[in-house]
Order: sequence, then structure tokens, then C-alpha cells
Amino acid sequence: MKASILTIGTELLIGQVVDTNSAWLGQELNALGIEVVERRSIADNRELIMSSVVELSEKSSLVFMTGGLGPTKDDITKKTLADMMGQEMVFHKETHAKIKAYFDHIGKAMTDAHVEQCKMPVEAILLENNMGTAPGMWMNYKDSVVISMPGVPSEMKYIFNNDLKKKLKSEGAASEIFHRTIKTAGIGETVIADGIADIESNLPKGVSLAYLPGIAQVRVRVSGNPEENKDVKLSVLDIADQIEERISEYVFGYDSETLPMAIMKILQTRKQKLTLAESCTGGYLSHWLVSTPGISEVYDGSVTAYSYDLKEKLLGVKRSTLQQFGAVSEEVVREMVLGAINATGSDYAIAISGIAGPGGGTPDKPVGTVWVACGNNDTMLAKKLQLSKNREMNIKYSAAIALNILRRLLLAKN
Amino acid sequence: MKASILTIGTELLIGQVVDTNSAWLGQELNALGIEVVERRSIADNRELIMSSVVELSEKSSLVFMTGGLGPTKDDITKKTLADMMGQEMVFHKETHAKIKAYFDHIGKAMTDAHVEQCKMPVEAILLENNMGTAPGMWMNYKDSVVISMPGVPSEMKYIFNNDLKKKLKSEGAASEIFHRTIKTAGIGETVIADGIADIESNLPKGVSLAYLPGIAQVRVRVSGNPEENKDVKLSVLDIADQIEERISEYVFGYDSETLPMAIMKILQTRKQKLTLAESCTGGYLSHWLVSTPGISEVYDGSVTAYSYDLKEKLLGVKRSTLQQFGAVSEEVVREMVLGAINATGSDYAIAISGIAGPGGGTPDKPVGTVWVACGNNDTMLAKKLQLSKNREMNIKYSAAIALNILRRLLLAKN
Repeated sequence: MKASILTIGTELLIGQVVDTNSAWLGQELNALGIEVVERRSIADNRELIMSSVVELSEKSSLVFMTGGLGPTKDDITKKTLADMMGQEMVFHKETHAKIKAYFDHIGKAMTDAHVEQCKMPVEAILLENNMGTAPGMWMNYKDSVVISMPGVPSEMKYIFNNDLKKKLKSEGAASEIFHRTIKTAGIGETVIADGIADIESNLPKGVSLAYLPGIAQVRVRVSGNPEENKDVKLSVLDIADQIEERISEYVFGYDSETLPMAIMKILQTRKQKLTLAESCTGGYLSHWLVSTPGISEVYDGSVTAYSYDLKEKLLGVKRSTLQQFGAVSEEVVREMVLGAINATGSDYAIAISGIAGPGGGTPDKPVGTVWVACGNNDTMLAKKLQLSKNREMNIKYSAAIALNILRRLLLAKN
Repeated sequence: MKASILTIGTELLIGQVVDTNSAWLGQELNALGIEVVERRSIADNRELIMSSVVELSEKSSLVFMTGGLGPTKDDITKKTLADMMGQEMVFHKETHAKIKAYFDHIGKAMTDAHVEQCKMPVEAILLENNMGTAPGMWMNYKDSVVISMPGVPSEMKYIFNNDLKKKLKSEGAASEIFHRTIKTAGIGETVIADGIADIESNLPKGVSLAYLPGIAQVRVRVSGNPEENKDVKLSVLDIADQIEERISEYVFGYDSETLPMAIMKILQTRKQKLTLAESCTGGYLSHWLVSTPGISEVYDGSVTAYSYDLKEKLLGVKRSTLQQFGAVSEEVVREMVLGAINATGSDYAIAISGIAGPGGGTPDKPVGTVWVACGNNDTMLAKKLQLSKNREMNIKYSAAIALNILRRLLLAKN
């Protein structure tokens, strides 16, 4: 079944708010096997709402709207929908009782705007909202269904997860699109595409392939539509296996797994710990690790040594090494690895030192020159990276590449 | 002038990626006085691209597209646009030379897909992309202009900020809206709005006001349109001054100034240095500081001590303090401040220890409990924060609030 998402509010158009509702709804609908064919954002404007609903209902059987249901003046969605569908607005007692109870509870009086909020298009099926005052609405429009929900994410999610999901299921909108995403690092999109061109040009019915490039990573997503092929799940897994065979050394995980998770898994099994000695990345890699629940089992903390001074004081890098080779050098990152292990008692360390930019480049070491070392006293890999002129990107790429070097070192040590 | 934004990619529809490009473009266009009337996302599909470009070019004079310009098969935007506009695809030598130079530089060979990428619609005006291989394109379509850019945010931003902005200005599409943004921390949006209600209801002609809430910060943006009032720049500055007088103690900067910059300025003048002892923020604050060019003058580095062990080893926090009060306590963050100063020789330190969530809460210290201390042996401020259940938000709020506490401590010490 085809769906579209229409989010309403000027704040979305001027970028004051990032539209996370659409992303969340897209994920949920996808998981329910409902194909989102378009996402659209428009201003709180009667004519725009009408024309968008007309256009989207021609393109899809389900139009999911969020926003424009609150009590303030610029929220005009409900009245507009009622007019489009030729429905009267009628006072809804239950909604009124619920809103009144809420206001009694917080000790405030209902305003006229809130009383106005209790009017509903006469034929709308209301969807319960336990997180706020405005219920969702399920309305028939020509051959489509228009579903309108408030824009506050917690309210929208409550409505979706309760009445709306039930209703979508009872109305029979459920074929499960099946995805398998192979996550790779250390290999480019085009190299993968070239390596699996024969697989890609012979995909089974209902199966499709997409490349999703990220930071020093490429996700290869295999998708299958069971409406086109009832064994699509098996086909997807088979194609994913075939692809993985060609690029196995670059694959670090599947679906929502991340590089820090991949590292964490390996270290957990071995009961080992990792630490970091960051210079140009300035704490970014540590922050990234710490975004992974459970990381404290394998990560105690780290040192960010931005200056020569702290590289000496906290990591024991020799002043003579710094003076002879400079902070951005193989010699220094190797000493940083050993110093970090020494300071923290971890089993492995990653050290990163580079010129992230925009300033600080020299003819010998232009902006984007980064040295990475991973390992310990027994085994160590050091690598020079030549990245871009963009500071933020250089930091993120350095961190991802460093994690992947460590991953490969850990697997080689197995 | 009216504009629309069209982002392309199935990953946007299934919510695998949040569409931050649209939000960023919306902000930039708004700042240039270009009104975004619609934002739309669709799949990499020839028919959908064609119909959307047709529809959006009827609604707006500028159609900004992102995505679908990479070298793999699912990127079909360029060919589709060329066909729609009846333009041949021609091999573009300069793009080829640039891509080839890049591949030579990284020591890899160009693939056939990359050579294919060098073909451009014959009448497209190319927009330089220094962050990647695919240039942007400026193309005329009926009475509108269609601008196509890659979906990778750093590439899209580079193109926009350079060739595209120049072209929009030279074509007269951008009117010079004048903005003055007052940046505040430590005060809520509604408190500001209540305090300046009289100013807001008497704005001079052509001047408007917007509140842009951020993470523990609120930006108050005063904007002026010179087409409505030729002295608008003076009016904007005057209104901004009036507002600032009311809330001066919360103002840390203007326009693109950030909290780290505000701290950096103060410390630079005093030739003093700052360090950090991070626990639950895990390196986020360090990374944020390091995103500020010039920060190395006032910041040498820091320690991320996630475990009890490293709080002892690297920061000299007493085991007895940890055992008696727990890691999330005033006593521990105070010892962390002193330990960080001792380890690094800095003049000031910030320490943060808390329960970022989702796990780890107790009845006494629920998720969102964070202790912050700022100062040194002479003066120290410690504060308990009670934040949300969202890990990422708790980390970001803790960091911003901590910087603002330090800012106020530094100013009080003046």
C-alpha cells in the first residue's frame, strides 16, 4: 500500500526545526510494509493544505499529516480538512471532558481557543492522544484515507503506536518490506558496485539494491517486496550473502550496528579494554564511543592531548620526538598509543594526531594530513591519512578510519 | 522570490536518514530573503523526479534539489534532468581532470562509473564542489531555475556557500535581509518574550523578530528587509540594543558567535587556560571546544574519565569520596576540577559527572541527574542539573550549561 507524509508548519520550511517526525513515521510505515512515496512540508496555509492533500491523495492511498492541530491561530488544518470533505464541525463532548479534566488537574482555566479545539469534523474517526489535548483524526477523502495528527513528536508517536497502528492493521495495510543492510568500512561505493555488478543486474523479482555512503563507510541495502515475490525474504538474504562473500573483509556489521558496536563486541568477548589518545579529533572519538550503550564494559576513558605539553605530561611522549618529527608523525602517534596504555592500563589504544584545518598546514604536511596508530606494545599499526580541507569532516573521517584499523588489527590477532 | 526544496533518496522516505539538508537549506534561503514554499522528498525514480520537478517549478521560481548525483546506478537525477530539458549529455573535461587528480592523489584508479560521472547536460552551469567529485548544476527549466546538488551535506554546503550563493546574488534572487542575532544562555524563550513584549509590539516598518530556541540557549533574531525600509539596518541595530539592555547578563555573543568562542575571548585576554574532566559527556565538550579555530591558545587538552578507576588514576579523585558519595556527586566533581588542573597546569577546569541514560538511574539519582563544577582552587561553582531521559540531549545540555556557568564565573571574577 502506498502512503505519503505531509508535515505542516513554517518552522519546518525555514529550518528552525528539523523534521524528525517524517523520519520516524517513515521508519514505522516501512516496518509495516507501507511504502512511503513522498514526504512533503508546507506552511500553515489553507490553500496549500488543500492542494497538497488533493495531490498526495492522488499519489497514495494513505496521507499521514502532522502539525497544525494545536490551539493557536496558525493551526488551521482541521477546519480546512472538514471544508474539503464537506463535513460540518461538531462539538465533541468526550474531547471537551478530557481537556477540561487536564486543565482542572493543572489548576488552570480552559481558554476559548481550547473550547474551539473540541469541535471535530462530523465523520472523523478520532484517534486517542494520551500525551496532549488534540486527538488524531482518520478521515475518508475520495479513494484515500487522510490521517491527521498533532506535530508534537510525543503526541504523534502515542497516537501512531496505539489507535492508529491497530486501525492500519484492521484495515489490512500490511505487507512487510524486508531490508538487509550490509555495513562496510574501508571500501568505496564504486569499488563495491563494480565488484557486484553481475549480482546487481540479475536481482530476483521484487528485490532491489541501494548504496548509502556515509563517513568512511558505505551501507549496501538489499530490499524485498513480498507483494512481488512471496519468497522475497529468502531472496534478500541470499543476495546479501552473495554480496558479502565478495567484500567480507570490509563488512563490520548489519542493519543498525555501528563501528563502535563492532569493536565493543570483539573486546567484550576477549574481556579487553580500549583507550584513546586524541589530538586533532579533540574528544570526538571518545564521544562517539560513549554514544554506544554498554561501552563502559570495554572503555574506561581517555586523554585528549592537544598541545605538546600535554602530550608529554599526560602521555609521556618524549619532547625530543616531538621536536624531531613534529606532533603529526608516525613516531609521535606510536608513543601516544604506548603512553595512553601506560596511563590507563587498557589493552589497546588508538592515537590520532593531524592537521584538521582550516589553518596549520605546511608544504610537507598540508591540511588533512593525519597520522593514526592502533595497538599496543606487541602489535601496532600506524597509517598516514590524506584527507580534505574540511575540519569537521577530517575529524569524523579520522575517527571512523581509526576504528576500522583497530577492528582489522583485532581480527588479525584472533 | 519563491523556492522549493526537493531531496532525493529512498533512505529519506524510510527514515534511515534524517533530512538535515532541507533544514540547513531552509535556514540559508530564509537568511537570503528567499521564501521556501514547499519541501519534498521522493525516491530515486525517474518518473517521480520528473513529475516533482514539473510540479515544484510551477509553484516556485527556484527548485533546489539534493541527492541522486553520486556515481552509482541508483543515482539517476542528472540524466533525468537532461532528458526533461531536452539536453544532450556531454563529457566535461574539467570535471574529469579534477576527479582524476583526486584519484591520483589518493593512489587509486578511476572506475567506469566515475568516468560516467563526468558527463553533464550540455547547457548546465556547473557549480564547484571542492568536497567531492560531483559538481552542482544550475539549469533553466521553463520559467524556473533548477539547482541540483549532491546529497552529502558537506558537499552540498560547500556548493551553496560558494558558487551558488554568488550566482543567486548576481541573478538578483537574493535580497539582502539584514539580521542581528542576540545569543543568550541561561534564560527561557517565554521569559525573554514576556520581558520584551512592548518592544515586539512596536517594531519599526520592515523589522521582524524571531525566537530560535537551541540547546540551553535561545537566539533572538532581529531581521530587517531593506525593500520595506531603506534605513532598516539602523532600525535593526537599535531594536537589538533595546532588547539586549533588558537581558544583558544572559547575552554571550552575536550572530555566529558560540559559547566556546565567548569563553575563548575572555581567557585569551587574560592569558589563561582551561581544561576539562569529563565523565558522562564522554569527550563531547572537548570536541565542541576543539571545533573553534584558535582554541589551542586557551585549551591544551583534557581527561575523559568514565570509570571510577580512571577518576582515581588520571584525576586523583579519592576512592573514599567515590565510595561515600558516588561518582555523580558534588564532592566528586569538585575533586575532578582540582585533579584536572593538577594534571594539566591549566588555570580553570570544568568537571561533569552524571547519569546520561537510558540506564543507570536510581531513585536518589534518576536518569538526567548531572553534577557540574567549574573553577579552581580559589573559586569554584558547583551545580546539580536535573535533565531529561534522552542521553544525547543530556550530554549536549550538560556541556552548554557548564560552559555558561564558567562564563559567568569568569565575568564575576573580573
